Amino acid sequence: MRVRVSPSAQNMDAHTTEQLATPALLVDLDALNKNMRTMSLRHPAAKLRPHTKAHKCTGIAQLQQHYGHKTFTCATPREIIGMAAAGVGEDFLLANEVVDIERLKKLAQIAENARVTIAVDSQETIDAAARAGLHDVLIDVNVGLPRCGIAPELAGRLADSARKSGLTVRGVMGYEGHLMMADGHDNRKQKVAESMQFLARAASDVGGEIISAGGTGTFDMHDDTCINELQAGSYALMDTHYAKLELPFVQSCFVLGTIISANPQWLVIDVGLKSLGMDHGNPTVDGFDVLFCSDEHTTLKPKKDSAKQKVKVGERLRVIPAHIDPTMAMHSVAHIVRGEELIDTWQIDLRGW
Amino acid sequence: MRVRVSPSAQNMDAHTTEQLATPALLVDLDALNKNMRTMSLRHPAAKLRPHTKAHKCTGIAQLQQHYGHKTFTCATPREIIGMAAAGVGEDFLLANEVVDIERLKKLAQIAENARVTIAVDSQETIDAAARAGLHDVLIDVNVGLPRCGIAPELAGRLADSARKSGLTVRGVMGYEGHLMMADGHDNRKQKVAESMQFLARAASDVGGEIISAGGTGTFDMHDDTCINELQAGSYALMDTHYAKLELPFVQSCFVLGTIISANPQWLVIDVGLKSLGMDHGNPTVDGFDVLFCSDEHTTLKPKKDSAKQKVKVGERLRVIPAHIDPTMAMHSVAHIVRGEELIDTWQIDLRGW
Repeated sequence: MRVRVSPSAQNMDAHTTEQLATPALLVDLDALNKNMRTMSLRHPAAKLRPHTKAHKCTGIAQLQQHYGHKTFTCATPREIIGMAAAGVGEDFLLANEVVDIERLKKLAQIAENARVTIAVDSQETIDAAARAGLHDVLIDVNVGLPRCGIAPELAGRLADSARKSGLTVRGVMGYEGHLMMADGHDNRKQKVAESMQFLARAASDVGGEIISAGGTGTFDMHDDTCINELQAGSYALMDTHYAKLELPFVQSCFVLGTIISANPQWLVIDVGLKSLGMDHGNPTVDGFDVLFCSDEHTTLKPKKDSAKQKVKVGERLRVIPAHIDPTMAMHSVAHIVRGEELIDTWQIDLRGW
Repeated sequence: MRVRVSPSAQNMDAHTTEQLATPALLVDLDALNKNMRTMSLRHPAAKLRPHTKAHKCTGIAQLQQHYGHKTFTCATPREIIGMAAAGVGEDFLLANEVVDIERLKKLAQIAENARVTIAVDSQETIDAAARAGLHDVLIDVNVGLPRCGIAPELAGRLADSARKSGLTVRGVMGYEGHLMMADGHDNRKQKVAESMQFLARAASDVGGEIISAGGTGTFDMHDDTCINELQAGSYALMDTHYAKLELPFVQSCFVLGTIISANPQWLVIDVGLKSLGMDHGNPTVDGFDVLFCSDEHTTLKPKKDSAKQKVKVGERLRVIPAHIDPTMAMHSVAHIVRGEELIDTWQIDLRGW
């Protein structure tokens, strides 16, 4: 286990979570390792292209590399720039469309020392990549999610156009994000298989060696699909949304809070919606019902059968986010813990765009 | 108009919004001034205690001071520490409970040069304030929102206890947050009046000179209530949630995005839920229906009657947040604009806790 020495200024002297100012983002190292081990056994080395957008932390990416993954998926130029600056990874896929020439030029500089591939789905994105001096692209194919990606039947023609512009087309990618939460394992697997037929058709028209897709929610549904690498990120830290799918990954990320107000009817913890991604709804706290979140607070009520009927002002609780990706992006550091022992503090250094 | 010279490293050479990397948070200076003028005419000088939690930006706070307000409301120790470091404001109210002695000690240091008052609602919060060497407190009174604040009938006794601990009790505060969006102006005003009767009772038992409450949604409903200062923050920047109330404040904050993907059915802009507070739902884009937001994207569809049927990849649009406070907390800088002209870049320097 490699641990980076990068304590935050705020909590340099803290040795246990009790000494941390709250709200504080905690990552349980044993749980993190467990998740990484499980995933790397299933999708070893380049079969997994871990997505940095889920954690935005080069410390966590370094651990992913320790588990054998040197190819990474990124969602923003900033993530690739930060990964390269930290010396983590050697093959970066920007799985997103960018037409900003200045930022693409920065990626072209990085491409002198590492492999940088960017997704394109239009003539405009091809032109931008070529003008910036980038070499490698993937054709981003729409496989059912109404977002980026060209229609499968147009992918081959777009690849031809990219090659005419002097670009190397490494293959295709598609993201079946609309299926991540589809009901039932078998139903989801069937729908993923159908969705990947669109990608297979595009791959056959486009050529190249990469067929990239998938995510945490479909990590075990691609044995018989066309893809040869999985883009997954949330598996490392998890959230209550993905926990509904009963995956073999455990919660490793929590927001530690302090009870700051209490009365016989409810309690208030200092973890609010500025420290939690809220698009998947309220967070969860073991033993409590969450009544609502406001900017700096969450109001809680002990569950009827909970052992925690007598929580007092000053006590601490762990809040489990409903959506991990935006939660990570709201914090500047992750405190790495084993139980309540504070092992290290890692910068969440890939925030921003 | 005072303008601070603090360009961000990223966009030092930008003179128009066209040169900004997106997503980029824009604040329209004319609209901001209009909102500040409107509010300061209604609640001049110390009648308004502007809330820094809504913008987390000392540049905006400095403008509020320019409009005559030198007393500020803050939600976190970090906000007071940052305001003091920037030399903006002279009387800070931490309208929140804190039991962290180390951070309270930092506020006690600031209290040597500025007035710092903190909210207390329990013996634990009183003890923490006294131990940290703070002098001034307000009794936080519950006026109907299930969050912090002591029951009105217990406020007097808590004030006695605070005085016994050597603290100066400057008065009371209560936040009628549960009424900010109550239906109908007259109904809302009536409910606010009822809620403030709880605060009046507590004020009479507690003593002191301050009776502090209110927010942007009830800014014009306190002429006949007991309060002598209004805590409002969102009025300066606004959001689509408060816009429903038809207040005399205009939208001054936008997240600028670039269309990165387009097809005959939909468009994708690079403003996603990591750059927008999502607890009040999806953002708004003039002329478009918002289909959904994901981490880095929002999928849009031109409205039937919209003039913007032919928006192309590379074009830019302004996205209006549904909730301004968490949106500001997600960005590191605010680009100050007049139309598309870039006037300055202000750090959002009060982020964190």
